[in-house]
Amino acid sequence: MSLNLKTQTEYFTNPLYLESGRILEPYNITYETYGELNDDKSNVIVICHALTGSHHCAGTYEDENKAGWWDSFIGPNKTVDTNKYFVICSNVIGSCFGSTGPMSPQIPHHNPYRYKFPVITIKDMVKAQRILFDRLGIHSVYAIIGGSMGGMQALQFAALYPKFALKIIALATTHATQPWAIAFNKIAQEAILKDPDFKQGYYDSEVIKEQGLSGMAIGRMAGHISFLSSESMSQKFGREYKRTDGLYELFGKFQVESYLEYNGYNFTKWFDPLSYLYLIKAINIYDLSRGFDSLHDALKKVNTELHLISFRSDQLFKSCEMKELNDTLTKVGHKNHFYKEVQSDYGHDAFLVEFDIFENYVRDILK
Amino acid sequence: MSLNLKTQTEYFTNPLYLESGRILEPYNITYETYGELNDDKSNVIVICHALTGSHHCAGTYEDENKAGWWDSFIGPNKTVDTNKYFVICSNVIGSCFGSTGPMSPQIPHHNPYRYKFPVITIKDMVKAQRILFDRLGIHSVYAIIGGSMGGMQALQFAALYPKFALKIIALATTHATQPWAIAFNKIAQEAILKDPDFKQGYYDSEVIKEQGLSGMAIGRMAGHISFLSSESMSQKFGREYKRTDGLYELFGKFQVESYLEYNGYNFTKWFDPLSYLYLIKAINIYDLSRGFDSLHDALKKVNTELHLISFRSDQLFKSCEMKELNDTLTKVGHKNHFYKEVQSDYGHDAFLVEFDIFENYVRDILK
Repeated sequence: MSLNLKTQTEYFTNPLYLESGRILEPYNITYETYGELNDDKSNVIVICHALTGSHHCAGTYEDENKAGWWDSFIGPNKTVDTNKYFVICSNVIGSCFGSTGPMSPQIPHHNPYRYKFPVITIKDMVKAQRILFDRLGIHSVYAIIGGSMGGMQALQFAALYPKFALKIIALATTHATQPWAIAFNKIAQEAILKDPDFKQGYYDSEVIKEQGLSGMAIGRMAGHISFLSSESMSQKFGREYKRTDGLYELFGKFQVESYLEYNGYNFTKWFDPLSYLYLIKAINIYDLSRGFDSLHDALKKVNTELHLISFRSDQLFKSCEMKELNDTLTKVGHKNHFYKEVQSDYGHDAFLVEFDIFENYVRDILK
Repeated sequence: MSLNLKTQTEYFTNPLYLESGRILEPYNITYETYGELNDDKSNVIVICHALTGSHHCAGTYEDENKAGWWDSFIGPNKTVDTNKYFVICSNVIGSCFGSTGPMSPQIPHHNPYRYKFPVITIKDMVKAQRILFDRLGIHSVYAIIGGSMGGMQALQFAALYPKFALKIIALATTHATQPWAIAFNKIAQEAILKDPDFKQGYYDSEVIKEQGLSGMAIGRMAGHISFLSSESMSQKFGREYKRTDGLYELFGKFQVESYLEYNGYNFTKWFDPLSYLYLIKAINIYDLSRGFDSLHDALKKVNTELHLISFRSDQLFKSCEMKELNDTLTKVGHKNHFYKEVQSDYGHDAFLVEFDIFENYVRDILK
């Protein structure tokens, strides 16, 4: 069976009413689908991507070296089985892979929005996806799965549209972003803003793709620290020094420094700095209880079967945060929620790389 | 009784032979003393400072608003009682508070060394201090106490000069810097190097003191993340938003962001960026076992009574690192070592702020 990978973009001319009170109008959403929609449209699984992810979560295009970001997880006979399910993953608004974001042309003059782009929230991303699904004639889905910022969306779907999904699986995420996660994002924000090549938002995207943007690279390095754990860093790098460098050279490098540098600078070739600023903002202000008196109140309407999966060594969205959400769901009287802490040493990135530890668990949920 | 605070500088014309094989010549060391040296010189306590500390660890100068960095700990009738002990704290070489560092004039032309300054190690810092003490006629001491980079020095004293100190107390430190600590330092290094005002080391110190250096501020923000813990961040900041900012302003700030920003930029007014690069290098390459086949071998000569104090929530130098050192000392057959994990939520900074939890423990050691 084939993956049946399709990429499409839908255009919306009706305004999107944002949580901030502002509107986005017009806007478009780029999305990918895999597998086949069945006749009664009962086999839809929605995948939500993380901060720097995209709609391209599985399969490999002809001109690509690397498969989609969750390819080990999604495909024929894989955990999310595209022989059975019709899978949709859309690029969130505010991002830079086809959906409307800060570098999209503003109507009527067609110059990029840049700082004129409105602040987007996780709720706005979810609302826009729901409008996309309506356009596609899909008014309810079998499951929604997401990790990290994708997990925030999954939880927001549960709170905002209590009957939309039958099952929701949120991995490596939180119900409200905590100060240490905001602190890591602050490094990125400050480093981007102070980079002279960023030019207060008036940077040249082509130049950045070619030369990199050190401010965003530095921010991404801080991100990578938060994505790993002390255990995974010890295992990956230890105190290994780059073989070619001298120990007493001021800029000689440990392996961990090379790793951060390579990944930091490489990142700036494929991600837009304004999108980065807008998406970390969305993550920072994410709070499932906003608009309610408490998290307890926010969860009262939640009806969906809800699966919370945390990773023991996750430093960014700690297990205790998921545990708190789980306990609150219990207190609210929610009947169908399940919490699992995966015993991984890998840190936050575990949800992207350690499939073997949790894929059976997810497979059982989807059965 | 008074603190009897004195600041002095000693000049050395004999070369300092560095671990790298290079030499530093001439050099000077600025130091402070408190209390009175007794007749048989048996009441000396050496204090070793951390990365951005200085020789000024106690008391307040007339023109100062703030006391020395360990003032709650050192003084008449305090834990380190200056009525009883003669306390010395010297500024490490490579730093920027009077001892020779990268911005010191290079002989004979008297221009600053900048990148021509040799890489300094923790062992070099300790060796230079020993030479200072010799100059002062002090050939053994009662105790050496240090936290963080100061703890590294304390441990290095134990390994390098087995009979120099009767008691050594190392707090919130490690026997070898681990990759996560190196990773945080990498953010600082990269941000400083990429700051156009740094001018590849040819910056104008006066301009920086006035205007700040955003690269170093960003690096310091990363440092502050590593100095705190999730618990202390939750307690200090939670998800509090700056009262004056709107939640949907792209650059509106959470309290944690204001804290990082204020402390980051303020730091650049009083610390030199080249010293920062050299001192984080010294920390990164610190490894008590260098030159030996193993940590076990490095500890064989250690003779001093050794007290290891870690802080439960320290994310930078984790308790398990001190534990490992303690276990290796036991295996080596060292007789007089003691390990204590202080139950603090405060993270790495606990050694600077939570005196009340560990001062009695230290007081008992010094009795």
